Amino acid sequence: MSRLTLALDVMGGDVGPRITMPAAIKAVGDDPQLSLLLFGHRDQISPYLKQIPEHLKDVKERLVLCHTSKQIQSEDGILRAMRRSHDTSMYLALESVANGDAQGCVSAGNTGALMGLAKRLIRPLFNIERPALMSIIPSLDNTPQVMLDLGANIDCSAKNLYQFALMGTIFVEQYFKLFHPRVALLNVGTETYKGTATIRQASQMLEADNRINYIGFIEGDNLLEGKANVIVQDGFSGNIALKTLEGAVKNLQILLKKQHSLFNPEQYNGASLLGLQSVVVKSHGGANMSAFYYAILNAAKQVRSHIPQQIAKALTINSFI
Amino acid sequence: MSRLTLALDVMGGDVGPRITMPAAIKAVGDDPQLSLLLFGHRDQISPYLKQIPEHLKDVKERLVLCHTSKQIQSEDGILRAMRRSHDTSMYLALESVANGDAQGCVSAGNTGALMGLAKRLIRPLFNIERPALMSIIPSLDNTPQVMLDLGANIDCSAKNLYQFALMGTIFVEQYFKLFHPRVALLNVGTETYKGTATIRQASQMLEADNRINYIGFIEGDNLLEGKANVIVQDGFSGNIALKTLEGAVKNLQILLKKQHSLFNPEQYNGASLLGLQSVVVKSHGGANMSAFYYAILNAAKQVRSHIPQQIAKALTINSFI
Repeated sequence: MSRLTLALDVMGGDVGPRITMPAAIKAVGDDPQLSLLLFGHRDQISPYLKQIPEHLKDVKERLVLCHTSKQIQSEDGILRAMRRSHDTSMYLALESVANGDAQGCVSAGNTGALMGLAKRLIRPLFNIERPALMSIIPSLDNTPQVMLDLGANIDCSAKNLYQFALMGTIFVEQYFKLFHPRVALLNVGTETYKGTATIRQASQMLEADNRINYIGFIEGDNLLEGKANVIVQDGFSGNIALKTLEGAVKNLQILLKKQHSLFNPEQYNGASLLGLQSVVVKSHGGANMSAFYYAILNAAKQVRSHIPQQIAKALTINSFI
Repeated sequence: MSRLTLALDVMGGDVGPRITMPAAIKAVGDDPQLSLLLFGHRDQISPYLKQIPEHLKDVKERLVLCHTSKQIQSEDGILRAMRRSHDTSMYLALESVANGDAQGCVSAGNTGALMGLAKRLIRPLFNIERPALMSIIPSLDNTPQVMLDLGANIDCSAKNLYQFALMGTIFVEQYFKLFHPRVALLNVGTETYKGTATIRQASQMLEADNRINYIGFIEGDNLLEGKANVIVQDGFSGNIALKTLEGAVKNLQILLKKQHSLFNPEQYNGASLLGLQSVVVKSHGGANMSAFYYAILNAAKQVRSHIPQQIAKALTINSFI
């Protein structure tokens, strides 16, 4: 392993130094080649540095306090936060990377401010239209998987998506030493005619590039299955997909701790076509008997609840429509 | 409970009658007021009807075989499937609703074809621009929750989203007898400035309508938490969110059966800002020590893997950029 310096925004995150400082100390303790520049308030950082025992002098020397009394106020809104960002711990941490004092930066602060300042101070790579937010995600069989974009780019062109696929490919090759990684676009179906015009155009661009191992569209329920190594989508749906995944994992763990049984997905079979003059229920194509049974019960209950009639009634007294 | 007739597309779904017929028989057995019109091939339906024991004559009488030898070919693509849909089990089932022979329809066939045919045969309600696909979703505390749209409308206007919120409100009021249900828009953050121009405009429309109990934006990780009763989004992100949720539940159950431990989400902390000239890693704001530690390791590994340099290199040899 090579020598390496990272810049840390110690003040970022919901908690700040109480979390970031112990993590920093553990990281340099574990990695004898790692140094950290600690950007934040000296009064909040020094107590942690003083607690490091004498015999870990070497660790202490690789933790460099870079004092600043300012920090990004995340309740400010991004634009306001960025205007007032000068000399904040996040700004200085990124600037130290731009200056070459550090080779990378870690922050738990506001994502929008971090991306905005990073674009301004560190600059996008030549030819990159939009830097993207990417994360490694788990898979059942431990296949390396990354997803991007995750919210930095709400609206994306086909070319943006293509560039994300390319960046993700390089990341997986370099980070996991997995060559020719499988690339997929996250879409609402696997057939080529599915999705927006933009995603279909991105699909054609990826298909045409034989240096990218493009396998086509995948759907949300494949995210944990390791089908692709690079999963690409616009930042809006990517953010929603990732947070949905995180929420499911977190909440299912809570349920398990409470010794509750898991949901019975069969019970939730049956999507309703709402806004029609009568009740129409769509069962899962792969429904089993019990699941299809629930779809029937669902339709019966909708009819008995007079859903279409009630919607029609609401429409007649509605000012927006 | 009132008397009720539903039309069933017996042939729809991955398996067809082997699934739909036992479900149909169970449903009429359980509900003495329910009759079903069974659209499908007589050779595949009759064997099930013949198996019903004599003493359940009453059940048998409420199962009405409506023979057709045609069915929607889902591998056809939606437009082609719809053009050739005449006299299929799905078409006839929907037509029986349009004619008043049945009051609702259940199908496990192709969603696009079902929505397309339903719009043509049953017609949208007056003033509804776009019928939506909606599903009831589970919540940890058993709060009734519905989500829409789930894929019927890939691109949505603010007015579409507003109408979905209204339809969802009526559904929850009527179906669950839960009045003044909480309505939220699924977005990439909870602050009012987050998301697309469309979603912000829909938010203003919902805010302005005091008959809708609008609570603002929610995020993907709140989906199981019962924060809202009606969760509204465009069909693209809704489809991805729902399938992601389903996939997570399914796959976590598989993991549990295998006695594997669940993922450690801390290990996956750290989103990368990709496309910049240096490594920048965004930790979760709410990260704990261990999670932030992993974000640091992640950044270190990225620097050592020369991610920005390798992306830059790939860009110089890329024909699309």
